[in-house]
Amino acid sequence: LIARVVARFPPGHATVLGPGDDAAVVRTPDGRVVASTDLLVEGRHFRREWSSAYDVGRRAAAQNLVDIAAMGAVPTALLVGLAAPADLPADWVDGFADGLADECALVGAAVVGGDVVSSEVLTLGVTALGDLQGRAPVTRSGARVGDVVVLVGGLGFSAAGLAVLAGGDTALAGRHPEVVAAFRRPAPPYAAGPMLADLGATAMIDVSDGLIADLGHVAEASGRRVELHSDWLLIEPALRAVGAALGVDPLTWVLTGGEDHALVATMPADVVLAPGLLRIGLVTEGSGVAIVGRQPPAGPGGFDHFPMPG
Amino acid sequence: LIARVVARFPPGHATVLGPGDDAAVVRTPDGRVVASTDLLVEGRHFRREWSSAYDVGRRAAAQNLVDIAAMGAVPTALLVGLAAPADLPADWVDGFADGLADECALVGAAVVGGDVVSSEVLTLGVTALGDLQGRAPVTRSGARVGDVVVLVGGLGFSAAGLAVLAGGDTALAGRHPEVVAAFRRPAPPYAAGPMLADLGATAMIDVSDGLIADLGHVAEASGRRVELHSDWLLIEPALRAVGAALGVDPLTWVLTGGEDHALVATMPADVVLAPGLLRIGLVTEGSGVAIVGRQPPAGPGGFDHFPMPG
Repeated sequence: LIARVVARFPPGHATVLGPGDDAAVVRTPDGRVVASTDLLVEGRHFRREWSSAYDVGRRAAAQNLVDIAAMGAVPTALLVGLAAPADLPADWVDGFADGLADECALVGAAVVGGDVVSSEVLTLGVTALGDLQGRAPVTRSGARVGDVVVLVGGLGFSAAGLAVLAGGDTALAGRHPEVVAAFRRPAPPYAAGPMLADLGATAMIDVSDGLIADLGHVAEASGRRVELHSDWLLIEPALRAVGAALGVDPLTWVLTGGEDHALVATMPADVVLAPGLLRIGLVTEGSGVAIVGRQPPAGPGGFDHFPMPG
Repeated sequence: LIARVVARFPPGHATVLGPGDDAAVVRTPDGRVVASTDLLVEGRHFRREWSSAYDVGRRAAAQNLVDIAAMGAVPTALLVGLAAPADLPADWVDGFADGLADECALVGAAVVGGDVVSSEVLTLGVTALGDLQGRAPVTRSGARVGDVVVLVGGLGFSAAGLAVLAGGDTALAGRHPEVVAAFRRPAPPYAAGPMLADLGATAMIDVSDGLIADLGHVAEASGRRVELHSDWLLIEPALRAVGAALGVDPLTWVLTGGEDHALVATMPADVVLAPGLLRIGLVTEGSGVAIVGRQPPAGPGGFDHFPMPG
């Protein structure tokens, strides 16, 4: 099994020694390495009935690679542990491996190592490595009063896709493949991480828990308040259409939906934003996240799941 | 929970940015990083009734840190994912974290990041990083005809300890705490990894699957045959005593017992061995592992579980 999988992982530009030995060796020209690890558990983080093996591989890689980008670094390598039930089909493993490899290839990274063990619960352990290329790491704690909040990437699509799949309406799913695809296979804006760092980002995070929750992490770590202007956010036509079909205010998905892995950063107020970079808020004195403008509806699945101190 | 755990992880000398952000940052003065990952599943790799939380932490860290040492590198950092059932006691997590931190401290490494998720099966994902300090990585594939095989560290203790625990004879366990302790908390010879590399090791591996199996990996990767001289191995008094009590030839544990995490290397024939380094075999033309001298008994739990090509 391991040999089959390893054959699906071509070396990357940073690979010195790939899979098959006690450990891998990866180039770190910066003299520092950025590293992040996640566990994904079937039934909690993915479902085989909702996502193909290939898409699980893409998503498992994506959510770790974007953690590297969110520090202002370029991903270089992935290590992947697979705890698999005895009846997991071999072609599931092949598809999963291909998904990992293809997502890595988007950023020039490579799968360099891993582990395969048995477990009753299909569980993935993914570790990503990256190189800062001389940049200072952009943490969550550097937001300053007067900074603007800048968003890169789509928000709410994955949550809308999950709502469509969970509702079981296959006709609706067929009419809105873009949101279902976003749930199965997020497309994080990897290159924006180093770009925002080079533009002077003072804090950065990827949106995995939802925009309000993740800006809350920045606010707390920075000891500042984030004012999020809901009217500055874009609510794309697909989200409006799916929201209308399901009776959900799509602003809820944009504000609280996780797993899109957009990047959000705080930047100097005079930053000149390239196309695709959206100003969505301001950093002020205080604490917590405040929503300025139209408020999302409260209630189940809505806003009050995410407490806002301050 | 995460905040509780993080407070138990002091930074190490290589830590630039520790837990709490999207990713950690670790110094890699060599310009390369060595990385290895393992998954550990309750019931397969550890049992809460046989090992304390602290010992599970020590062992989870040890088996990854020694993979770094087996490349000739010095471990610098650990990332740890914890997939935990909802009823896992908080003090188990504290003990586990303390075990991780203490094992890391033995080598100057530090826990720099992690992830905590829910799962019905307690599962640990551990990734270790290390620095080669300018050395060439020592792989499994470099053994040359004429090299000697050198062992550093104890062998058979963990398997004997497992046999004692599995037998349920608490009096026997009480009489042989050294083997039970070796099962619960292996003590890999970390410093020997870089030392053997500096002495010219041509191949190296840590003994996690059993001596014959792991030398088989070296033989296969190197395209050579390993002659293992059973009469050159030490069978320590504790193993003889436990073997006598359980009716097991202790040579079986030494040759096939995993999880002691001794290091075994192939070295130039003229190497001058320091105390604690044991010559146990030779590299020849051919393939597979051959045992020269007394043969271990065949049968259940014994030798024929480990096929020897050649």
